[in-house]
Amino acid sequence: MNPSKLTIIGVGLLGGSIGLGLKATSSRYQITGYGYRRETLEKAVEFGAIDGFNLDLAEAVLDADLVILCTPVGLFAEILGKLAPVLKPGTVVTDVGSTKRSVVKLATELLPESCRFIGSHPMAGSEKRGVEYARADLFHRALCIVTPTARSQKDAVVSVEQFWQTLGMRVVRLSPEEHDAAVSDISHVPHIVASALVAMQSQMALPLAGKGFLDTTRVASGDALLWRDILLDNRDNVRASLDRLQREIDLLRKLLSPSKAEALTAWLASVGQRRDELVREKLKEISAE
Amino acid sequence: MNPSKLTIIGVGLLGGSIGLGLKATSSRYQITGYGYRRETLEKAVEFGAIDGFNLDLAEAVLDADLVILCTPVGLFAEILGKLAPVLKPGTVVTDVGSTKRSVVKLATELLPESCRFIGSHPMAGSEKRGVEYARADLFHRALCIVTPTARSQKDAVVSVEQFWQTLGMRVVRLSPEEHDAAVSDISHVPHIVASALVAMQSQMALPLAGKGFLDTTRVASGDALLWRDILLDNRDNVRASLDRLQREIDLLRKLLSPSKAEALTAWLASVGQRRDELVREKLKEISAE
Repeated sequence: MNPSKLTIIGVGLLGGSIGLGLKATSSRYQITGYGYRRETLEKAVEFGAIDGFNLDLAEAVLDADLVILCTPVGLFAEILGKLAPVLKPGTVVTDVGSTKRSVVKLATELLPESCRFIGSHPMAGSEKRGVEYARADLFHRALCIVTPTARSQKDAVVSVEQFWQTLGMRVVRLSPEEHDAAVSDISHVPHIVASALVAMQSQMALPLAGKGFLDTTRVASGDALLWRDILLDNRDNVRASLDRLQREIDLLRKLLSPSKAEALTAWLASVGQRRDELVREKLKEISAE
Repeated sequence: MNPSKLTIIGVGLLGGSIGLGLKATSSRYQITGYGYRRETLEKAVEFGAIDGFNLDLAEAVLDADLVILCTPVGLFAEILGKLAPVLKPGTVVTDVGSTKRSVVKLATELLPESCRFIGSHPMAGSEKRGVEYARADLFHRALCIVTPTARSQKDAVVSVEQFWQTLGMRVVRLSPEEHDAAVSDISHVPHIVASALVAMQSQMALPLAGKGFLDTTRVASGDALLWRDILLDNRDNVRASLDRLQREIDLLRKLLSPSKAEALTAWLASVGQRRDELVREKLKEISAE
């Protein structure tokens, strides 16, 4: 399937950027928006992110080849429940949520067998919210993790992967469990730590912040409600990741002694090297495109 | 005193950027370099960071109004010891080290009363090393902390502060003790945490790193030897800061429960707000210039 009729549920920063990105690649897409607030949807039409909208969910998804859930994760249960009776057989459904086990479980429970739900996590975004910040190139060169299960139909997986590739994304396939464990390490715990670094600052220290501190804590400016949902949904993994972080910090603390200077240097050097290698890999990925 | 004859001890990234920055503001400066390696000093002359150099320390500082120590902190004791008998009375000495209690103590012990040592910490830099990365605008708009003591002569303090202002820096005055406590919070612990975040990553998680993770961990690519010296020198403060970070992470861990959703949101929102305010303050500082 090569979807050309799409319905975007929730046309904010991510949903709007999907619409703008598709429109920038081809005129063949027919994009319908759905949401609770007419005003937001009218703005999305004005910005060219969607062709039109429908405030009735059943009508909004009537002809859709692909439905993309772009609302906060907290609304997924309600929306999937409403979608279940109205989706036509064969419609592919995906989402943009930052955790994957819970939404895949919900979709399996709520949607009929004939509908094909494949979870997605496009790893792109911004601290900004709203369709007014949407950008056609938001997903460009970023990574999208697609999380099929043993039950997923191959053609649905492939069409969701191709969909993200159309938007310029590199696609990686992981199970929902692998996904949630990995993003806990690479995204959720860094968010918590960046926040804790801001929270711990004294009134004397904070004004001394330079570019380093602002970079280290940039992610702490994210949306509190969005992050509450992510952290609670993935709390088992987040706790395990925090334990592993703790072990590294405890190790470093033991090395804070002149008699351990050599081991301290070795630890710092190996970490720096690991990050330098990561940066080289990331540059290679980008230049390979 | 308005220094025009300067000696830079150690002409790397920082020392070289001081030279280039001064030369960019006026032709009146006469800048001598000192270091162990002729090759580095020749390169520094070639790049225009210094006018000339002398491999003999006594000769290098013979006429200097202002001597600036730009070597790694680990060499300060040796260099201050060698400077003590050869500095002419009245010469002002400063440094660019990232910790201040130890160097101020060393200078007080080693230098004669007639020499005026005022500690400085220009908070600018780069992950790069060497005079080839020096830039005339490296210090521009950044913060310099100057750390006089009760014994410091006022005119020496003022001339050191004016010197950094000439390079475009904003100057803040703190005691060496206040400085070391504050930078432990705002710089040293963020460095440790960024490093621990890199170290804890699994092989599955690391390739999923996006812009957020790269920003959060950018400082972890710093020079291992430089950071070993900083962390060991300031280890009492660093341990206390790590304790405070720990308390914030422990608090967050307790909030990782659906029954605490409201308190979790409030914590995340207040931290985000604190960071947003900091960013606004920083933008104001920059635009005020």
